[in-house]
Amino acid sequence: MSAELRLPHGFHAYVANIGIKDHTDDFVVVASQRPCAAAGVFTLSSFAGPSVLVSRDHLANLSARAIVVISKNANVATGAAGLADAHEVVAGVATALGLTPDEVLIASTGVIGRQYPMDRVRAGLDAMPSVLPGTDAGAVARGIMTTDTVAKTASATVGTATIVGVAKGVGMIEPDMATLITLFFTDAAVDPGQLDAIFRRVIDQTFNCVSVDTDTSTSDTAVILANGTAGQVDLVDFESALHDVALSLTKQVARDGEGAEKLIEVTVDAAADSAQAKRVAKAIVNSPLVKTAVHGADPNWGRVAMAIGKSTRADEVDQTKVVIRFGEQEVYPVQLDDAGLAALAIYMRGDTIRIHVSLSPGQTVPAGQTGQTEAAGQAVATVWGCDLTDGYVRINADYTT
Amino acid sequence: MSAELRLPHGFHAYVANIGIKDHTDDFVVVASQRPCAAAGVFTLSSFAGPSVLVSRDHLANLSARAIVVISKNANVATGAAGLADAHEVVAGVATALGLTPDEVLIASTGVIGRQYPMDRVRAGLDAMPSVLPGTDAGAVARGIMTTDTVAKTASATVGTATIVGVAKGVGMIEPDMATLITLFFTDAAVDPGQLDAIFRRVIDQTFNCVSVDTDTSTSDTAVILANGTAGQVDLVDFESALHDVALSLTKQVARDGEGAEKLIEVTVDAAADSAQAKRVAKAIVNSPLVKTAVHGADPNWGRVAMAIGKSTRADEVDQTKVVIRFGEQEVYPVQLDDAGLAALAIYMRGDTIRIHVSLSPGQTVPAGQTGQTEAAGQAVATVWGCDLTDGYVRINADYTT
Repeated sequence: MSAELRLPHGFHAYVANIGIKDHTDDFVVVASQRPCAAAGVFTLSSFAGPSVLVSRDHLANLSARAIVVISKNANVATGAAGLADAHEVVAGVATALGLTPDEVLIASTGVIGRQYPMDRVRAGLDAMPSVLPGTDAGAVARGIMTTDTVAKTASATVGTATIVGVAKGVGMIEPDMATLITLFFTDAAVDPGQLDAIFRRVIDQTFNCVSVDTDTSTSDTAVILANGTAGQVDLVDFESALHDVALSLTKQVARDGEGAEKLIEVTVDAAADSAQAKRVAKAIVNSPLVKTAVHGADPNWGRVAMAIGKSTRADEVDQTKVVIRFGEQEVYPVQLDDAGLAALAIYMRGDTIRIHVSLSPGQTVPAGQTGQTEAAGQAVATVWGCDLTDGYVRINADYTT
Repeated sequence: MSAELRLPHGFHAYVANIGIKDHTDDFVVVASQRPCAAAGVFTLSSFAGPSVLVSRDHLANLSARAIVVISKNANVATGAAGLADAHEVVAGVATALGLTPDEVLIASTGVIGRQYPMDRVRAGLDAMPSVLPGTDAGAVARGIMTTDTVAKTASATVGTATIVGVAKGVGMIEPDMATLITLFFTDAAVDPGQLDAIFRRVIDQTFNCVSVDTDTSTSDTAVILANGTAGQVDLVDFESALHDVALSLTKQVARDGEGAEKLIEVTVDAAADSAQAKRVAKAIVNSPLVKTAVHGADPNWGRVAMAIGKSTRADEVDQTKVVIRFGEQEVYPVQLDDAGLAALAIYMRGDTIRIHVSLSPGQTVPAGQTGQTEAAGQAVATVWGCDLTDGYVRINADYTT
């Protein structure tokens, strides 16, 4: 996505470095000129941080006007002092913008278990302008990054309105309700209740289907603000456009997983129900042995059979009826000869690996279908992940020190 | 363990190379001179291989006399031909030893999705002696290895009887009912029904508490043969001795995890029930971010908070009451200063890292306690795992090719 991408009409941003950890941007505020319908989806972690607790509370009325993001420090496992700090940041932003604190949301991301450097945070709040100067969505995306290697933005239009999304997240990524931080802004006018329902459906089929490393963050936050500047839009078209934006960000997150070099897309179809389909797909995309085989371009498809096996009971899946494909090539139950293994090895060298498992015969869906359906015996789920590399180990063996 | 370790009285072994993959030993038979009480615990995978299916069937009467192990090929996902091959191997061994096929068990381990090279297997069966020549338990342990770097044996005495155990397994290790392959031999006389019950309890507290990489094998097999040569023993002492042997092998498996350089032992106590204790402990020991922090000796204890959070709901665990310790050092809720972090960093450089989490205050158990108890509010579980290293990635990116 280009650095030219602008926030929708009526949204403005302030992006700065306030010295949380180093000299890169770590303080981002996005605010709307008008009140917004708003919805949020947050981590289910029992160690959810103060930012999640405060934002969930402020979103109870499905309304908000601004969000502040502090990156490079998650403010998690910081006790009562950490909660007080989060409230102080929100109050400071509200004062600067002439809003009430409950109109301001907050998200944080970075190391766990360290207090904010509040002297620097207070200086940053004092330096914040009352009129936000920017509209560059790329700057917002860059300001919320931690170990991300690329800024993640996506956009779509629906009628006369625009949807702009940003996301960050490369590790501790198996969202339970959302990814680390993803923010959506639109100038469409959408009823708050409908916005909330649409947003939850879209997140469930996109960000809740990505996993980098099975580790669910304490800070997962997905928020959408709709300020209505562009007027009403068709809701079916709106949901479709929002899905496209969220899906694009989901794939960007998967491909930029810590140390990742390849995108893995796993589709499981002909499943008993969507829960089974998603469980098996997640087991495949999360298997360290599948992830390392993809990394090494090793045609070791048996590891996919292993992952199906470990995620299902013998009375639930009949292994003689399962079909496993890599790209368009069937690898099981057909017994590959040397030429077949050689063809598979060539496919494995690509930078996007698609694994397609049909749990029962004669009930496959068209290639390329994604998302979830519910019909018994033909449920489908698609999930995204990345390979496991030496780089992941090095990044995470050395993160705080 | 030394290469001098002998099988218990009345057991003999044959260990050979029959050319499954390379020139290392890949064909092991252990047989008893007398009929044995026998018990087995097997993978719950829906892709369980023919060896598991055949052995489970042959153990239905809690009796057996011999076991054959083929390593370097798992004979999994090989269809009807693979099942016929397993029956042919068992029949061949039975013929050589003058037994009936249902007195012979089989286990296999290695690459998934490839047929046995049956021409070489048949030649190996033809070359097998009718009287087994060996009693070296170390040779048995070496003969069943795949990518293991050390042979794993353990033994204990109970009364006049001996228990000898061997195990193999370094990857695809998160046993659902057993580890990849672990075999126990004893000359104690134990009633088959009691042996079965004791064996299941011991495996549940040892091998079912180890995880190298969360990937459950299609070939997990744990078997015990008791031939009664040494006469009856006290059953409480027997269970304790068997637990010691199994625990030793469990830790050997964890420490020899693929690429592993450190052993991680996680104890969770003051839990609502043993299921919760084990779930949280497994989430910690399996977290790639915890595993890489241990590898890098990074005092990033916040990742343990993350793992507790992702494995419990907010209404299930109160984060303000949790206590996290590394070794003897409390790291949460106390807020570590720089000296505390430095002390933690020194501890992290050791080759055994103990993480101790108390989910509720005032209900901790004595240090060093392992196993599971059931009392509400004071349940405890201990699990074992290893660090995640560049070596794991390299081994598994290149395994079949």
